Amino acid sequence: VKDQKRIRDYGIKIGTLRTGEKNSITDVAGVKVGHVTLEEKEVKTGVTAILPHSGNLFHEKVIAASHVINGFGKTAGTIQIEELGTIETPIILTNTLSVGTASDALVDYMLTQNEDIGDKTGTINPVVCECNDMHLNEIRGKHVHKQHVLEAIKNADIEFKEGNVGAGTGMACYQMKGGIGSSSRVIEAGNQSYTVGVLVLSNFGLKQDFILNGLSAGQLIQEIDKKKELYDSDQGSVIILIATDFPMTERQLKRISKRAVVGLNRTGSYIGNGSGDIVISFSTAQHVQHYEEDFVVPSQMLNENKIDHVFRAVAEATEEAVLNSMITAERTTGRNGNTLYSLKEYMEDIIG
Amino acid sequence: VKDQKRIRDYGIKIGTLRTGEKNSITDVAGVKVGHVTLEEKEVKTGVTAILPHSGNLFHEKVIAASHVINGFGKTAGTIQIEELGTIETPIILTNTLSVGTASDALVDYMLTQNEDIGDKTGTINPVVCECNDMHLNEIRGKHVHKQHVLEAIKNADIEFKEGNVGAGTGMACYQMKGGIGSSSRVIEAGNQSYTVGVLVLSNFGLKQDFILNGLSAGQLIQEIDKKKELYDSDQGSVIILIATDFPMTERQLKRISKRAVVGLNRTGSYIGNGSGDIVISFSTAQHVQHYEEDFVVPSQMLNENKIDHVFRAVAEATEEAVLNSMITAERTTGRNGNTLYSLKEYMEDIIG
Amino acid sequence: VKDQKRIRDYGIKIGTLRTGEKNSITDVAGVKVGHVTLEEKEVKTGVTAILPHSGNLFHEKVIAASHVINGFGKTAGTIQIEELGTIETPIILTNTLSVGTASDALVDYMLTQNEDIGDKTGTINPVVCECNDMHLNEIRGKHVHKQHVLEAIKNADIEFKEGNVGAGTGMACYQMKGGIGSSSRVIEAGNQSYTVGVLVLSNFGLKQDFILNGLSAGQLIQEIDKKKELYDSDQGSVIILIATDFPMTERQLKRISKRAVVGLNRTGSYIGNGSGDIVISFSTAQHVQHYEEDFVVPSQMLNENKIDHVFRAVAEATEEAVLNSMITAERTTGRNGNTLYSLKEYMEDIIG
Amino acid sequence: VKDQKRIRDYGIKIGTLRTGEKNSITDVAGVKVGHVTLEEKEVKTGVTAILPHSGNLFHEKVIAASHVINGFGKTAGTIQIEELGTIETPIILTNTLSVGTASDALVDYMLTQNEDIGDKTGTINPVVCECNDMHLNEIRGKHVHKQHVLEAIKNADIEFKEGNVGAGTGMACYQMKGGIGSSSRVIEAGNQSYTVGVLVLSNFGLKQDFILNGLSAGQLIQEIDKKKELYDSDQGSVIILIATDFPMTERQLKRISKRAVVGLNRTGSYIGNGSGDIVISFSTAQHVQHYEEDFVVPSQMLNENKIDHVFRAVAEATEEAVLNSMITAERTTGRNGNTLYSLKEYMEDIIG
Repeated sequence: VKDQKRIRDYGIKIGTLRTGEKNSITDVAGVKVGHVTLEEKEVKTGVTAILPHSGNLFHEKVIAASHVINGFGKTAGTIQIEELGTIETPIILTNTLSVGTASDALVDYMLTQNEDIGDKTGTINPVVCECNDMHLNEIRGKHVHKQHVLEAIKNADIEFKEGNVGAGTGMACYQMKGGIGSSSRVIEAGNQSYTVGVLVLSNFGLKQDFILNGLSAGQLIQEIDKKKELYDSDQGSVIILIATDFPMTERQLKRISKRAVVGLNRTGSYIGNGSGDIVISFSTAQHVQHYEEDFVVPSQMLNENKIDHVFRAVAEATEEAVLNSMITAERTTGRNGNTLYSLKEYMEDIIG
Repeated sequence: VKDQKRIRDYGIKIGTLRTGEKNSITDVAGVKVGHVTLEEKEVKTGVTAILPHSGNLFHEKVIAASHVINGFGKTAGTIQIEELGTIETPIILTNTLSVGTASDALVDYMLTQNEDIGDKTGTINPVVCECNDMHLNEIRGKHVHKQHVLEAIKNADIEFKEGNVGAGTGMACYQMKGGIGSSSRVIEAGNQSYTVGVLVLSNFGLKQDFILNGLSAGQLIQEIDKKKELYDSDQGSVIILIATDFPMTERQLKRISKRAVVGLNRTGSYIGNGSGDIVISFSTAQHVQHYEEDFVVPSQMLNENKIDHVFRAVAEATEEAVLNSMITAERTTGRNGNTLYSLKEYMEDIIG
Repeated sequence: VKDQKRIRDYGIKIGTLRTGEKNSITDVAGVKVGHVTLEEKEVKTGVTAILPHSGNLFHEKVIAASHVINGFGKTAGTIQIEELGTIETPIILTNTLSVGTASDALVDYMLTQNEDIGDKTGTINPVVCECNDMHLNEIRGKHVHKQHVLEAIKNADIEFKEGNVGAGTGMACYQMKGGIGSSSRVIEAGNQSYTVGVLVLSNFGLKQDFILNGLSAGQLIQEIDKKKELYDSDQGSVIILIATDFPMTERQLKRISKRAVVGLNRTGSYIGNGSGDIVISFSTAQHVQHYEEDFVVPSQMLNENKIDHVFRAVAEATEEAVLNSMITAERTTGRNGNTLYSLKEYMEDIIG
Repeated sequence: VKDQKRIRDYGIKIGTLRTGEKNSITDVAGVKVGHVTLEEKEVKTGVTAILPHSGNLFHEKVIAASHVINGFGKTAGTIQIEELGTIETPIILTNTLSVGTASDALVDYMLTQNEDIGDKTGTINPVVCECNDMHLNEIRGKHVHKQHVLEAIKNADIEFKEGNVGAGTGMACYQMKGGIGSSSRVIEAGNQSYTVGVLVLSNFGLKQDFILNGLSAGQLIQEIDKKKELYDSDQGSVIILIATDFPMTERQLKRISKRAVVGLNRTGSYIGNGSGDIVISFSTAQHVQHYEEDFVVPSQMLNENKIDHVFRAVAEATEEAVLNSMITAERTTGRNGNTLYSLKEYMEDIIG
């Protein structure tokens, strides 16, 4: 894992806050990420699972919020996140036409873990997010199967790969190769420090619009690229997951979710019509007990006067996570012989 | 079909507007409904499919809106309905733990119908709604399979059964037997008449709260019932689908969706915490072409000054659809020997 | 005050939960209500002020939420309530065309109370709600002046009048006289009890639709009324304020706000197009400090598993508050000689 | 007017689409803008009025939408815009503590124009937006009076000034002088061309974050500035108005409103906690008649497949409008002797 060269390894530093130790969503204690990659010929797809903590998520839910930047998307589970302010399953990322399969697999996983569900207590709310990888992947073949989802959950670890891996295997970002990317920021708060981690599944944007830390790199790349054929519209999407160990209410999590768009726009996005841009955020600081019996439960929340620190952390980590998703991805040829080049192939030309 | 005795057959008339010919959602021209019922021993579940029109829904989308009354639910597809204001697939109703399967089946159906999806054009947004039928149904067994969904779509017709049928097979309403119910209203508008149709999947409420056309019938039933054992919390849900041939914008459809709660409350609901109460509405009056090329397209909308007529129609038809879902349902014994009685068993005592 | 005959005094008991001592929003400790009534000839209007607590509201904000049932209304201040989850001023009720004046007066009041506002710290968010009293009031004359708002705040007390008083002076409910009404419910929670209080400014509905505790009283009244001339559309509004001493997050307050519609519908409302139906709720259990310095602050929240108790309390108290607003109001003749009769004039005929 | 040097006059070209003739919101036919500027000693404030068309706005409403980027703001009128999808008054911009006064003045203006309001028909929904100019303006003095609002409406014209004028008189942007700025873009659509115009009232951001067309100009300025004292938090706001002659539904207008944030972020904003960032957009293409009598009315809408053109136009014009608001503003000294410098004082150092 550690051998992947990331955007900071090219001397590019996004923003002013310091990163967590791994500069990853898993810098937030307890968070784990697992992949299953499906990659042969016209099959370029997969599954990525994010676990907010390693205990029983159904019995100990995390406080959560979602935010729709642009709703041309099929993410499952947000109605209940909005109503109850909690997530009670791992979060699964995959391709658009596999949301049903992933949702079904997640139900199976939860039923196996919890004999009470659907018997002595109610049901569960599977959270599944998606992007459309059809440029490289034979998406109509629906190559993601239930066992892939279960394996991705099982593979979840603190260390994980970025780029064209898991759900990111077939994704395109600014008409180059995209996929999974992550970054984190640390905020000093008196005697304590808190962490904000971001993981993206990037699959959006036109090459001409790509901005690298303020530089109009996309236009440079287009000149280099002149001979290369490109598809011509933005039919992608991006999923942005935010984790933090700051105690926050659902409202506060929703507010920080709305700042992901800052990082996104800094990489050049115009939030295209066809791009389903969805944010899901959660706090690991306190758990909501499924079988809580007391009428009133103690809680903690962030002082709103301090929330600008978190806004900045989200914006910076999102921008950097998108760049990491591109720079770690390898050139890939898939469906119909379509090829997407890696950002790293252009870096010498861009940063000289 | 026609032999089912409905609430009007008991002399109970809800509201003041006149009903459509069949007093059904299929009074809206083009709308069809199909069921698959799964009913043996502890299996009491199924699928209901609603087709907004009989053409190619992906190529000719209907204008649509959704509204979350209470979001303790897992309905799939609403993010995109909200963003784009359209529905492009049949609408599937089933049990909570089968949403993934139904979603996956709907993808298969759409791929078969449309070779362009995921190849020459983008993907699709399957719309699947659910209620939790675990009181009567061995829901952990996930007895709904993909072919059931395809069959329900195939079975779609203007005539359809109500009560414990299709997705309604195992549902409970006010701790009696619930399920599928429908009703419609006609509005005279100058020389023309327009229709508003409602279909519900009812699965909510406590017996004590049940109101029958203003009468506190639930309390009467509780007295009669004294010996009968009951579960004691409201973990249900209700799905309310509204169809109309009035031309409306998405905003107007959202506004009428918000009036479904009036009908719901008139039957006694307190909108319980555990009840996922979701409304989806669509207009058949004009189609949105998937491959539209003109920049500007002609359209029509309802004069907002007249919308109160539609509000009233929605409220009345929703109230009556809930009652129809109950009065047409048969007494059912399912999982763990749980039995739900039919409202019709009490009608003699209630209306004397 | 105590001499007003309320709906319970007619033997009509709404719901099953017990009321607070005064059956009023001021049963929630700290909440106070004050009126200024403007009543001469064609002037039938006024101001009602609600104080969430008697301390410095700007420095000690209350957690709050708002909910728009139908947005044909001009309530000021909800954008910030939604974003920050707090209220920092008294809540003012008045007629539609006086919102600007009331907002301006509230700013003056806050500036006088707080020298830091607009100097050493930021500004304030005045919360002003309204209904249109033009049927009885010469609303174009804008007879509410700034000093009326300041007086209403000053008049705030635990005891207050209902009916055609304060902002309710010129309001119409179900084409009878409406105005200010209140009610409360108590919930036992282990060793403690908590209170939910509701205050309404009622100004909506058609006579034909009025329901009195399940009885279609409006239709009875119409028969009695045959000779009386009526206006013929629902251009009213209703403001519903909910106070509680339960600790709740903003999300939970929003959820309980959504149950006000249950009580509203039980009195007969179809949520008319022209009716601006707005709910604002707040919890007095914990204050948010304007000058908070800690990064993380302790808090409390309601166990979501118990929230159904509060939903029922809100629904019952809202229904009863609407009925109290009608039954305490006196017959009034105003603009153009328009007369609205009091519900109490019909009670003998209705309840026999 | 024409003598103001704008950002393009410095050779800086934002984006790729061509501008309208005046590169102004008034390139959208019918739109007019008027100012009243209050500027003496510690009074640095004013009013700006935007007229969507020059006819009777109450009788011929424009289709409209609003979008809250960050709700720490007091904008009045959005509840009804969201519900009904229309604007029926001029739009007024002013300082935060003058919203009540401006709202009241707008009511007066509408009553004078329309004898039917509050007499034979209902009331009106005044739309008033605000930013907090307290850094330069003695805001507690509430120096905006009703006649200023009426004058600003009267002053409305196709030509108007930018910078520290009208509502922009006392505003700060990136800790430099901000205020009123505008820009437009033209989209070719077959044989026709359509215009998208933006006007901003800018009052947000920290100097360190300011980006000038991709360049981190804020950091350069900070170096130059070392000796200058600055306030240290982002307590500003920004109002963004979008006008277009494209026919659009309210949903489409809301979607384009959400792209204003792209332009905003490109200038460096992190969407600070204390900044009330509000967007209001309207289409002049078709009017909604107040006294419409037909049940169904013909309409037009944009083909959603083409909306990316408008998204890009909004993003580009918003970015340029913010820059224009800064570059046209003059250095200003106000309350407490606070001084804000003009961006133009730094331009030589920035662009060399």
